[in-house]
Amino acid sequence: MVSQIKSSLFLFIVLVLSKTVISARKPSKSQSKPCKNFVLYYHDIMFGVDDVQNATSAAVTNPPGLGNFKFGKLVIFDDPVTIDKNYQSEPVARAQGFYFYDMKNDYNAWFSYTLVFNSTQHKGTLNIMGADLMMEKTRDLSVVGGTGDFFMSRGIVTFETDTFEGAKYFRVKMDIKLYDCY
Amino acid sequence: MVSQIKSSLFLFIVLVLSKTVISARKPSKSQSKPCKNFVLYYHDIMFGVDDVQNATSAAVTNPPGLGNFKFGKLVIFDDPVTIDKNYQSEPVARAQGFYFYDMKNDYNAWFSYTLVFNSTQHKGTLNIMGADLMMEKTRDLSVVGGTGDFFMSRGIVTFETDTFEGAKYFRVKMDIKLYDCY
Amino acid sequence: MVSQIKSSLFLFIVLVLSKTVISARKPSKSQSKPCKNFVLYYHDIMFGVDDVQNATSAAVTNPPGLGNFKFGKLVIFDDPVTIDKNYQSEPVARAQGFYFYDMKNDYNAWFSYTLVFNSTQHKGTLNIMGADLMMEKTRDLSVVGGTGDFFMSRGIVTFETDTFEGAKYFRVKMDIKLYDCY
Repeated sequence: MVSQIKSSLFLFIVLVLSKTVISARKPSKSQSKPCKNFVLYYHDIMFGVDDVQNATSAAVTNPPGLGNFKFGKLVIFDDPVTIDKNYQSEPVARAQGFYFYDMKNDYNAWFSYTLVFNSTQHKGTLNIMGADLMMEKTRDLSVVGGTGDFFMSRGIVTFETDTFEGAKYFRVKMDIKLYDCY
Repeated sequence: MVSQIKSSLFLFIVLVLSKTVISARKPSKSQSKPCKNFVLYYHDIMFGVDDVQNATSAAVTNPPGLGNFKFGKLVIFDDPVTIDKNYQSEPVARAQGFYFYDMKNDYNAWFSYTLVFNSTQHKGTLNIMGADLMMEKTRDLSVVGGTGDFFMSRGIVTFETDTFEGAKYFRVKMDIKLYDCY
Repeated sequence: MVSQIKSSLFLFIVLVLSKTVISARKPSKSQSKPCKNFVLYYHDIMFGVDDVQNATSAAVTNPPGLGNFKFGKLVIFDDPVTIDKNYQSEPVARAQGFYFYDMKNDYNAWFSYTLVFNSTQHKGTLNIMGADLMMEKTRDLSVVGGTGDFFMSRGIVTFETDTFEGAKYFRVKMDIKLYDCY
């Protein structure tokens, strides 16, 4: 009888601990274990005057003259997102949202946008916002919500500028790490 | 003695399991059980030139010419939110924020706004952002935070266009589902 | 043997209950216990024409004429944030983002921005959005995400206008309360 209790107690410990671990949503300070992690490339192809066919973003305000680094230039975009560096590859998502420049002594930006996935692999969205501190090699933005396959997700997107070709095109590597998955 | 242990063990199991359920904030994959769920109607009444009295939103940028679907038109709003379809019903909340059009081949929008509740029933706010994929019958945005009665809430808002009357007025049904309640 | 089981059962209860408490992330309804709480001052120094040196924010749209309270004026900022009321004190953070006015019958605003910390004390960001209901003495916005030292944080920022000097300068006391810390 006693050994029966002991063995059922052991089973119960295993059961409860595994449940506890599942319900514990605090990642460790090391931030070492995202529940989902993938890298995508964001391509911004700025609208000029006569390139409607290629362009996927456009400025909607003029910088008011606070410094020489485009302070106040607001850009709205529906940009392709790919798994490799080629902007002509089949997009796995669209990035829909906006950014603006916001520093008078250097280039610096701020983003808020949605990654819209609509493929056989992923359907749903990730909503992202944060400062793009362009003078840093990498910078972290927040994934503040998600829908569909990414229902209620939260996490971090690490930006790294991959190339910058004047005012017409730039590419950012986005390392997406989700810590709340459902 | 053994039976005493057995019964206290049983009680303990019930206690711990109920606690575990309470602390487990992972909704099931079915996303079937929001802790709060309500439907509201959002009314956007666009400012023209001489209709200050009725208008509750206004465009602040001009589309720069990327396609023919208002790409880059940014609208700021303080729109009434009601429980029925009549925009003249007593509002239960205001929707304060902005949206813009962001697609060159079709109508598509992006929203970020706050639902401000200030009635005897609800006081507080819900903060919402996401893509409004207008070609879809329904589309999900994220509730990324809340205050007051909605302290720290998160969830999903499902948009469904209810009517669209040219450039002057549209109405969206918002199905609000909160999965984190406190 | 039985007493051995009893004592190990007791130990196990303590162990599980402490784990359960740790994993329970529901703050009480009283919202009384943030895991981090600090007060900062936000200084908005608006760009005029010839004050590039001092200015840290600038309007990028013109109000379209919906009422007399700047409805539709959108301001982008990279504002200093200090621990006291003096805007010339060494900033402990920058506030990078935007606000706009959105009411036709009174002054009312809406904010979305990032607090960028880069000191020996704090490195990282907090991402914030919400309505700034200026007619209220205090109003709550949402902290929807964080990075670095504020990895995955959520919470509330309570705004209180500290001073308002015409169109050139205002100062807001931000009481920052984080309820999710990692």
